[in-house]
Amino acid sequence: MIRVTILGRASAKPTAGSHPSAQAVNVNEQYFLVDAGEGVQQQMLRCGINALKLRAVFISHLHGDHLFGLFPLISTLGLYGRRTPLQVFAPHPFGEILEYHLRYFDQNLPYEVQWVPVDTTKHRIIFENRTTEVWSIPLRHRVPASGYLFREKEPPLNVDKGVIDRYGLSVAQIVAAKRGEDITLDDGRTIPNGELTYLPHGPRAYAYCSDTNRSAMVARRVAGVDLLYHEATYADSERKQAKERGHATAADAARTALAAGAGRLLIGHFSSRYRDLTPLLDEARAIFPNTDIAVEGETYEI
Amino acid sequence: MIRVTILGRASAKPTAGSHPSAQAVNVNEQYFLVDAGEGVQQQMLRCGINALKLRAVFISHLHGDHLFGLFPLISTLGLYGRRTPLQVFAPHPFGEILEYHLRYFDQNLPYEVQWVPVDTTKHRIIFENRTTEVWSIPLRHRVPASGYLFREKEPPLNVDKGVIDRYGLSVAQIVAAKRGEDITLDDGRTIPNGELTYLPHGPRAYAYCSDTNRSAMVARRVAGVDLLYHEATYADSERKQAKERGHATAADAARTALAAGAGRLLIGHFSSRYRDLTPLLDEARAIFPNTDIAVEGETYEI
Repeated sequence: MIRVTILGRASAKPTAGSHPSAQAVNVNEQYFLVDAGEGVQQQMLRCGINALKLRAVFISHLHGDHLFGLFPLISTLGLYGRRTPLQVFAPHPFGEILEYHLRYFDQNLPYEVQWVPVDTTKHRIIFENRTTEVWSIPLRHRVPASGYLFREKEPPLNVDKGVIDRYGLSVAQIVAAKRGEDITLDDGRTIPNGELTYLPHGPRAYAYCSDTNRSAMVARRVAGVDLLYHEATYADSERKQAKERGHATAADAARTALAAGAGRLLIGHFSSRYRDLTPLLDEARAIFPNTDIAVEGETYEI
Repeated sequence: MIRVTILGRASAKPTAGSHPSAQAVNVNEQYFLVDAGEGVQQQMLRCGINALKLRAVFISHLHGDHLFGLFPLISTLGLYGRRTPLQVFAPHPFGEILEYHLRYFDQNLPYEVQWVPVDTTKHRIIFENRTTEVWSIPLRHRVPASGYLFREKEPPLNVDKGVIDRYGLSVAQIVAAKRGEDITLDDGRTIPNGELTYLPHGPRAYAYCSDTNRSAMVARRVAGVDLLYHEATYADSERKQAKERGHATAADAARTALAAGAGRLLIGHFSSRYRDLTPLLDEARAIFPNTDIAVEGETYEI
């Protein structure tokens, strides 16, 4: 299960009602923060997400509207008495910025903040454990930027209940089958694993792509994701400005979702000029119907 | 007229409903920001205060919950195209922190941010113009900290309408009287200025004291203010912790207001442990009845 909670979906200029970029991504009860715009810690409180549970933070790029909320969060986790190290994946020179922050504001932080540099030119696994992998996605913005792809590994095989009864499988045989082995019965017959087991579900995947121009390469990197969050800072009428500023239009986001064969598209990072977002949603849906506007406080589940 | 709008009244640990320290102080349509906790720019938007109008910012001390909102605000004012320099009054080493921020986040800021160092050991005028003066107030906190006293200068004299008619004063004589001069009439009589003019109102004063232990010296520095905002992080039951942490209890705040002969007391900077603030209000009112709890979004006028 992957749950994405939108903590902020605004672009750089703040509005009274919305917050800059931030999301909480829950992959099978492992909590990750993706970008950390100003106010992210309060948004987590409002959404009932426990900041102490954060495993790691993934920062797309070093523009303030994606980052300024991280430093207050780091300090607050210290006040909460966090002991577990916190990994922060971010492009260079985040390490220098972090060092400055700790020097002036958190001399005695009770836990370690570990910077993991992200090469924004490479598409590779940057975080991995038994159940989950996170990939970097090179983006095309004014500064080095990386999207992030969260993918479940293949879930453990289930053994068909009916099969267990039919062949009277022992616990040892069931465990072996779960490992993917064929089973030889007492009467000498061998049952191929494919007859005994099945995948409970395919591995799920979620991709976050902000900030970026539309890019065919990005579409290839996120091919087949169940859910894609793609920035849509502008409407099609501003596509020239979008291109120049390293951003995407709603139509750009939809074209990427279409080319990637994504299951569903969420658009966000809206310019503060759009009080009514319906035109952007319409432009995207005309190209990729299963599009929705990312709503702050909402959780989107795969 | 002095209007104080509470933008944040929480202490370091954030809660879903309240923001860290920040206030907008409007002295006869000159706008000042006092402290700048995370989220201050969004709070200003919610309260309808135009950040572009800010004349200066006054930072009490360099703890994050009083400062982290300033850097996003500085960046946003750049996006808004501010040209007028912005003065930031703050203790050392704010200049280093500002320099870092500009280096990593605002290389091409279209306006100048001017740091004015505040000597937190001195009570002196640090900002002055024709109508207004701002005084520093040495506070007693864990780190160098300064409160700020906003005081109107004596307003221009008004000339009594009846007197003008009675003596048939010329425009030149009225102007002279407004300057405080005695007036000699054509018949040789001299009318002392005191008979001709009056002060429309006394000069108003507002003081901000956070974060600090209770201090008799602070009470002397804010003597006679119309409105005093004093931190009240703790209830009386936590007075030992208050003392150790460089903070005040609600009773401490009330004793300072009483000793200062303040007109009215606002308490704030509450610890996140208090969901119900009534006990703190009661403790303060038992000592200084004209006490209220600072409410975010509310404006208090003198």
